[in-house]
Amino acid sequence: MTSAPGSPLTGRARLTDVAALAGVSVGTASKALSGGGRMRPETRQRVLDAVAALGFRPNQQAQSLHTGRSWTVGLVTTDGIGRFSTPVLLGAEDALGAGKISVLMCDTRGDAIREQHHLRTLLDRRVDGIIVTGRRTDARAPLTGVTGLESIPVVYALSPSTDPADTSVVSDDQGGARLAMEHLLATGRTRIAHVTGPEHHAAARDRARHAVAHLQAAPLGLSTGRVHFGEWSEAWGRRAADAVLRTAPDTDAFFCGNDQIARGVADTLRERGVDVPGDIAVVGYDNWDTMALASRPPLTTIDMNLAEIGRIAALRLLEAIDADATPGVHTVPCRLVVREST
Amino acid sequence: MTSAPGSPLTGRARLTDVAALAGVSVGTASKALSGGGRMRPETRQRVLDAVAALGFRPNQQAQSLHTGRSWTVGLVTTDGIGRFSTPVLLGAEDALGAGKISVLMCDTRGDAIREQHHLRTLLDRRVDGIIVTGRRTDARAPLTGVTGLESIPVVYALSPSTDPADTSVVSDDQGGARLAMEHLLATGRTRIAHVTGPEHHAAARDRARHAVAHLQAAPLGLSTGRVHFGEWSEAWGRRAADAVLRTAPDTDAFFCGNDQIARGVADTLRERGVDVPGDIAVVGYDNWDTMALASRPPLTTIDMNLAEIGRIAALRLLEAIDADATPGVHTVPCRLVVREST
Repeated sequence: MTSAPGSPLTGRARLTDVAALAGVSVGTASKALSGGGRMRPETRQRVLDAVAALGFRPNQQAQSLHTGRSWTVGLVTTDGIGRFSTPVLLGAEDALGAGKISVLMCDTRGDAIREQHHLRTLLDRRVDGIIVTGRRTDARAPLTGVTGLESIPVVYALSPSTDPADTSVVSDDQGGARLAMEHLLATGRTRIAHVTGPEHHAAARDRARHAVAHLQAAPLGLSTGRVHFGEWSEAWGRRAADAVLRTAPDTDAFFCGNDQIARGVADTLRERGVDVPGDIAVVGYDNWDTMALASRPPLTTIDMNLAEIGRIAALRLLEAIDADATPGVHTVPCRLVVREST
Repeated sequence: MTSAPGSPLTGRARLTDVAALAGVSVGTASKALSGGGRMRPETRQRVLDAVAALGFRPNQQAQSLHTGRSWTVGLVTTDGIGRFSTPVLLGAEDALGAGKISVLMCDTRGDAIREQHHLRTLLDRRVDGIIVTGRRTDARAPLTGVTGLESIPVVYALSPSTDPADTSVVSDDQGGARLAMEHLLATGRTRIAHVTGPEHHAAARDRARHAVAHLQAAPLGLSTGRVHFGEWSEAWGRRAADAVLRTAPDTDAFFCGNDQIARGVADTLRERGVDVPGDIAVVGYDNWDTMALASRPPLTTIDMNLAEIGRIAALRLLEAIDADATPGVHTVPCRLVVREST
């Protein structure tokens, strides 16, 4: 079925069509829809009836010129690969979409020039706010360098802003480390090695610090955790497990900074004839299903609830757009996922 | 530094500011910027100078009302997890961003109601076009059910439309299977097993069919490939390798439907004391670095160039917006990535 452009039959009914059917002027139809202006209730009803009959959808661009809101939000990710930012992004998109807010997505790939370009584009499009996310939990410098930025709310998700006056939503690394240690202690483990990523990554440093602090505070009076910084890879997990078996053979558990390391540890233990979890328990971090489920045995791990971080960031942004910002760092709790490795 | 809202110092200079600085009316300033209307070249230059001096950026919403274009494109992904759609999406975003087009991202999570909701939102926002992507290479039904859709171009990326009159950009599964088989034959392998995902997935079926066809056409006169359909998992790769070693011990190579399967195969071979690639070569599919690099040995694999699929889909969409659509299925070549497993 074809019809003339702009006619109701194309499904893109225009305001003029609504006005004609309601028997009012275009200006009156517009006022009836925007809720502004005075008119008789019957007149407004006739316009609304015509809207329903024609399936008319108001042009959001034109509406935005009236309301000063674009009902769009920019989502800036610095993470070209996306294993961490993708769930955050989808959580945010879900929360915003429910509120009829559309998401303009930009990927800066960690490049300052691309970030400036995207920010200018977002401001030109009059976004109501911006969510920034990245792959690291390290704090990042606040968005800057583009005029107009100071007039719209920005929320940082996963990677917090270094400015405490900004609003950031992050994972609770302290709680995650505590969940892992409590679980290992509760299952009778006391000599726990911690194998993790590079010390210059906040995720590695923070989880190690909190794990050690939790052990030191435990009623068992353990003196310290044994922390091994390295890389976020399976290969490092395999090497580190070998070293620990050699230098601290009384070890009865590994808490690992991510699931890749934990999987490497589990592989080495199995290949050395060590029973997991019979002899040694293994706990990972991330609940990355590809790793955690393919591991032999499948991994007990800490889930950061990345989608929830995105969702909370979106809700904080909506609050800041509609009312007031809630500055500071908001943490989202982790959860323990128990599988066969403990 | 703070200043009154709307003043040039906030960085959000208004058209009235430009007009005042240029000493012209707002209408003249607007005409100078849109390129419409007659005016003296000196007048237009004064307006452009004022734009530069104030860092004025035209309101894109207002511009769109004039041009009829929103300079936005909808990117609909049906893939909540995103391992396949994320690179496609980033490739498309990259190509569109270079053309100053913004990307409105929607995730339908494979849910028909969410898809309808998102499509309505995109049409309300007057997107210039839509790219649809998903995690599977199986053809999907064209977008439908929302009035107004028929008037804007749509391009399908990775998951083609079942309607040949639509424009789809897909991976060249035939070429990918050929690259793998040519490489194995070139390195002297002749008894090749193929282990892949479920037969009801097009990706598994197509790669298997093309691999077998290539073997049958090879000058060696091989009678057939040995195809094992199963799951896209490491566990299936491990089980299948065991079965092949038992039932066809003369096998000298595995071509696997994805890198997870290939990694499972490599693990079983190593644990059975089979040297890879000395005794048996292994080729994966996807070039998923997490799997391919962590495998022992690292995997030779086929890269689908997913970002390139996104980029080409974006270029096809821009063509369709600016000029004419190029209906049909466009294939993007794969490339062979050689590592230690062959």
